[in-house]
Amino acid sequence: MGKNDFSNIKFFLAEFSSKFDKHLQSFIPKKEFFSNRLYDAMNYVISVGGKRLRPIFLIEIANLLGVKKSYSLRTAVSIELIHCYSLVHDDLPAMDNDDLRRGHKTCHKMFDDATAILVGDALQTLAFEIIADKKTHPSAEIRCMLIKELAKSSGMSGMVKGQMLDLVAEKKKLNIDEILELQKLKTGELFRFSCIASCYLNNELKKIKTFSKFSKNLGLAFQIKDDLLDVEGDEISVGKKINKDSKRGKETIVSLLGNNKAKEYSEKLIFEAIKLLEPYGKKAQRLKNLTDFIISRNS
Amino acid sequence: MGKNDFSNIKFFLAEFSSKFDKHLQSFIPKKEFFSNRLYDAMNYVISVGGKRLRPIFLIEIANLLGVKKSYSLRTAVSIELIHCYSLVHDDLPAMDNDDLRRGHKTCHKMFDDATAILVGDALQTLAFEIIADKKTHPSAEIRCMLIKELAKSSGMSGMVKGQMLDLVAEKKKLNIDEILELQKLKTGELFRFSCIASCYLNNELKKIKTFSKFSKNLGLAFQIKDDLLDVEGDEISVGKKINKDSKRGKETIVSLLGNNKAKEYSEKLIFEAIKLLEPYGKKAQRLKNLTDFIISRNS
Repeated sequence: MGKNDFSNIKFFLAEFSSKFDKHLQSFIPKKEFFSNRLYDAMNYVISVGGKRLRPIFLIEIANLLGVKKSYSLRTAVSIELIHCYSLVHDDLPAMDNDDLRRGHKTCHKMFDDATAILVGDALQTLAFEIIADKKTHPSAEIRCMLIKELAKSSGMSGMVKGQMLDLVAEKKKLNIDEILELQKLKTGELFRFSCIASCYLNNELKKIKTFSKFSKNLGLAFQIKDDLLDVEGDEISVGKKINKDSKRGKETIVSLLGNNKAKEYSEKLIFEAIKLLEPYGKKAQRLKNLTDFIISRNS
Repeated sequence: MGKNDFSNIKFFLAEFSSKFDKHLQSFIPKKEFFSNRLYDAMNYVISVGGKRLRPIFLIEIANLLGVKKSYSLRTAVSIELIHCYSLVHDDLPAMDNDDLRRGHKTCHKMFDDATAILVGDALQTLAFEIIADKKTHPSAEIRCMLIKELAKSSGMSGMVKGQMLDLVAEKKKLNIDEILELQKLKTGELFRFSCIASCYLNNELKKIKTFSKFSKNLGLAFQIKDDLLDVEGDEISVGKKINKDSKRGKETIVSLLGNNKAKEYSEKLIFEAIKLLEPYGKKAQRLKNLTDFIISRNS
């Protein structure tokens, strides 16, 4: 991908986020007759931005398959709400204890710990409420399948399990297989949902296998790039504390493989992911560029 | 209700809980290849018991309407998981800071704060996963309606909103209308779901209005009894710290109305709730006894 493509993608992402964020905000009430605190804090969390990578992959794959835009947009809102809830809880003093997220104060720093706990809880609930509504898809069967997938990806057998392993990893050195399993759960599962949701929305369950494989490579490459930014990036452009893992003595894929080997591995993963999109030809060009962006980004 | 009925109900409740708890436990994995901590903590939370009032009202109303037992049982598990998740988060130091729940150490005391946050998150997700499965009802439409109701009852417009108001109430004296609104949200909404779920499961949406009214009286009477136990009960039989609200200078329905008037009010609420069950005649006898138990219990 040339320099020109890279700036195109950055421009496209910025434009996407700006539109998507307005849509995301429309799901959260603004005013209430007494106490706005919960809604203020929920609005704060979703207004401080983010790369919106999970929504963009969901929506780009939906466009590729020909899913109706209103369906993919609502499903993308749900996955982003789940991602946001996990960040709010993960940033709490009892967990990662982060003061900074996306260059802004974290929710518990801006409000307080109790508010952040409730905000996370409510964002999770809202994600399921949105999918259950018939506006997300006329078929209730498909909505139920999506809800089951989202629950599996994000719950005790998916993301939350990964976060638990991550806590355990602070006390116990993990080997490479354990770290790969941890990352597959902690970040890979939500990427998987983003990449396969459109197979459900378009009732093309046969395509789940391909897009599941695509997401596996994408999620792992994303994590390696995140680890590399943690050791090589600077705090201002990354938008959060760096050297977090090494300071805590936590092993990562990068610390175990070394920077160069890890980088090579992530390039191989992205190369193979892009290959899976070949059958879609030119139609998949922007999705290919986005996939490449996962490892070329600097924040 | 005579003394004999009261001990019958206590015996019935104990037997119900014992069976229900086994079923509840069957939804949470026991062993995992590395780190059992999440499942250990989830199992701990649901194993230390509780009155299981929300499940029992859901199931008794289901029996009254003729809902298939396996449907009502799964839906009852979901509502209890939502209730359990809210307790785990509510007990955290950042929220109510309770060491004792149902006579046992709270989750964060037994494990740690981070684990308790994740346990609550995962219990919520599991509740939605269970309803989305076709074992809960053959009609996906009905499952989606239940998921939407559960999300509304428990999320930012229901229980979580009530918990936020409860936090605000620690700093601001509420009047009786504000307290009634707070309680309607914090405890009333989940009772509402328990009482109307069977109208969905049996596809008798016309009955929602009656059972919604029933639940309103039930939830409020339950809360008044809880407040009364907080000022009149003893810590050992209640199973948690007492005098919590008065120590924090928080107003309750009881503190605003006075013990006697509050007690009279709760009796009136229960009397009216039981009257709504008259059309079901003798079939509703146990449900009537359970309704009465809400204010005659001592824990």
